[in-house]
Amino acid sequence: MLAAASALLAAAPGTGARAASDAQTPAAAALPDREPFWGPHQGGIVTPQQAHTYFAAFDLHAKKPGEVVQLLRTWTDAAARMAAGTTAAPLGDDPNVPAGDSFEASDLPPARLTITFGFGPGLFSKDGADRYGLAARRPEALVDLPRFNGDQLIPARSGGDIAVQACADDPQVAFHAVRQLARLAYGAAELRWVQTGFLSRSPRTPEVTPRNLMGFKDGTQTPSDLDKFVWADGPDWMAGGSYMVARRIRIALEHWDRTPLDFQEEVFGRHKRSGAPLGKQNEFDAVDLDATDSEGNPVIAENAHVRLATAASNDGAQILRRGYSYNDGSNITAERWPPWRQGMEFDAGLFFIAYQRDPRTGFMKIFENMAKFDLLNQFATHVGSALFACPGGVADGEFVGQRLFDTA
Amino acid sequence: MLAAASALLAAAPGTGARAASDAQTPAAAALPDREPFWGPHQGGIVTPQQAHTYFAAFDLHAKKPGEVVQLLRTWTDAAARMAAGTTAAPLGDDPNVPAGDSFEASDLPPARLTITFGFGPGLFSKDGADRYGLAARRPEALVDLPRFNGDQLIPARSGGDIAVQACADDPQVAFHAVRQLARLAYGAAELRWVQTGFLSRSPRTPEVTPRNLMGFKDGTQTPSDLDKFVWADGPDWMAGGSYMVARRIRIALEHWDRTPLDFQEEVFGRHKRSGAPLGKQNEFDAVDLDATDSEGNPVIAENAHVRLATAASNDGAQILRRGYSYNDGSNITAERWPPWRQGMEFDAGLFFIAYQRDPRTGFMKIFENMAKFDLLNQFATHVGSALFACPGGVADGEFVGQRLFDTA
Repeated sequence: MLAAASALLAAAPGTGARAASDAQTPAAAALPDREPFWGPHQGGIVTPQQAHTYFAAFDLHAKKPGEVVQLLRTWTDAAARMAAGTTAAPLGDDPNVPAGDSFEASDLPPARLTITFGFGPGLFSKDGADRYGLAARRPEALVDLPRFNGDQLIPARSGGDIAVQACADDPQVAFHAVRQLARLAYGAAELRWVQTGFLSRSPRTPEVTPRNLMGFKDGTQTPSDLDKFVWADGPDWMAGGSYMVARRIRIALEHWDRTPLDFQEEVFGRHKRSGAPLGKQNEFDAVDLDATDSEGNPVIAENAHVRLATAASNDGAQILRRGYSYNDGSNITAERWPPWRQGMEFDAGLFFIAYQRDPRTGFMKIFENMAKFDLLNQFATHVGSALFACPGGVADGEFVGQRLFDTA
Repeated sequence: MLAAASALLAAAPGTGARAASDAQTPAAAALPDREPFWGPHQGGIVTPQQAHTYFAAFDLHAKKPGEVVQLLRTWTDAAARMAAGTTAAPLGDDPNVPAGDSFEASDLPPARLTITFGFGPGLFSKDGADRYGLAARRPEALVDLPRFNGDQLIPARSGGDIAVQACADDPQVAFHAVRQLARLAYGAAELRWVQTGFLSRSPRTPEVTPRNLMGFKDGTQTPSDLDKFVWADGPDWMAGGSYMVARRIRIALEHWDRTPLDFQEEVFGRHKRSGAPLGKQNEFDAVDLDATDSEGNPVIAENAHVRLATAASNDGAQILRRGYSYNDGSNITAERWPPWRQGMEFDAGLFFIAYQRDPRTGFMKIFENMAKFDLLNQFATHVGSALFACPGGVADGEFVGQRLFDTA
């Protein structure tokens, strides 16, 4: 489930995805620098993708439901304030107490900040305990993700009781947002893991599809039908919400960079420079899974990324990908595949984020085969994983997820 | 030696630094997106600071001087090509061999990319061995940095035989550059450590001094006299070069954020919102170290950051700071100072980079007292350190550092 997947899904025959994607086409220069916080859906899902993310998964330490409610009230208020370009909380006028904001974003515009909240399984029950009286309200779709073929998950980079996805066109604005929320959560919730990410577009040509760290174009179109593929339909507090899958996918860039171009293109099933499907000329030409060469072999290999990711290979399943490249320095790594190199390597890759109506018919459906067969797996290792139920949008005066608690 | 230092140095009485800083004032919208590679000085030193850096320190594995020369030739050629906005090497037309570039920056502009090379002590001798016949040519100024008070250096984040500082207004462009050089170095040099960094300015008001992660304005002016403070004067291959100090400074942001505003201001010796020195109204008002309050106490504390960093407290010493905030996720940390909290904390802070004519009269001179007395030390821990001799600029047809090898 790497970078080209959604381009493929969107461009697959019959999905008609291009029309629906117009509202998603980023054109940074033309956009305002403020995204709405209140509304029928949370921001950061179908919002045109910002250039940076700072993602955090929190563990809850709250003992009682009321503390969780108070946390969500405080977070909602702070998130709305920051999205509007003001401080997370009133600064206060007593210089002897900590201020309501750390101030490093105070000269910066909101940079289209969105803050998206998601609830993990641990909010509903943890270690067998129904700690907040919500166990019976856990949605069926909020499954425990199965182990996929090849998973090498690190617990310290997986899971979490509550997710906060902050996205902005400025990395300092995104980090600032999570930092304020972490401070305001003191005693009730603590950071479990975090992840930064970036998505680079040319200011000269913002309409050009960005490339991932493998050098291939990374489509960012939405699925053709948001109601069908993205927005959840229940329970009631999830109406207008969505399920978020987050996967930290490390890519063996050193290995990839020593791989000949024709094999790279076979892996993706696309041409590197143009982004066109193999055998086609243009990026948005339809993928022809049935095409064969003069010897009768498929033009797009049976285990090419494009073939396995496309809706036509997955009973029409589509997900809304909203991932970012990540770049976390370097460390000693042993590669899984030939040449089995062991040494200092970039800790970089894809922070895959996908939204869907139901993970069982979305990510899990699509990725099950990919995890087994995708040629890309030689270069990609899933090292972190989480699933969150992101409630529907928030009306002014409510707090995020309020209906989950109101009816508990 | 934290973020406000150079603002202080520059604004101190008698330095006249504002005049010299005009050429350094970033105004992103007005700048071209290409910086020259060839010239009397390497780029990335007095170049108006870009928004992102990707810094790498390499260990040399080359056995012979000729391999080092070949590496530097290859790197020089690739760096010049990438600064001009093209691929690191010709792509080649044989699809069966790895291409000359990984291509993820191919749709992006050069984004003012600069690549700055520096030579560490290990190029001259390592483990007592004069492996490249250069031991006698090690400059006196390329000292082994002493241990400073409070240093908690991690060897895996310190040192290195050759440094590559890539800076660009796009994080993908900066990373792309180092990634190509790492690939081209295969067999001759290997990554030792890397560091990403960012510096956020408002596109609305690019002239406003950026803030560091402590929320204080972070001056970026140059010293008043580049020849006196920045450019080295010898040996000959260092003419037009400079000495680069790199320090990874982790900041206890959680602790800082729970510190009252008046204490934060006492620590820096400046007002947080305006950036003015304590007792003054405006950011660029001169720092008055002699001012006292109505009870005769100094307005700016004896151990305030501003006092210790300013040229007037250091026999006039000045350095060119060119640091970036960094944000490397989170991990378990035990704080050094009350409240001695232990828990999951942001691994974030300042990637301090400073250029100077001679580190003995620059960083070492200024930081010796700061390491002992600066109030900021309660919140800052130096965990990585390196010193590099950055040769003078490169003329077209030369390779970086050529004169060091020509006369060896």
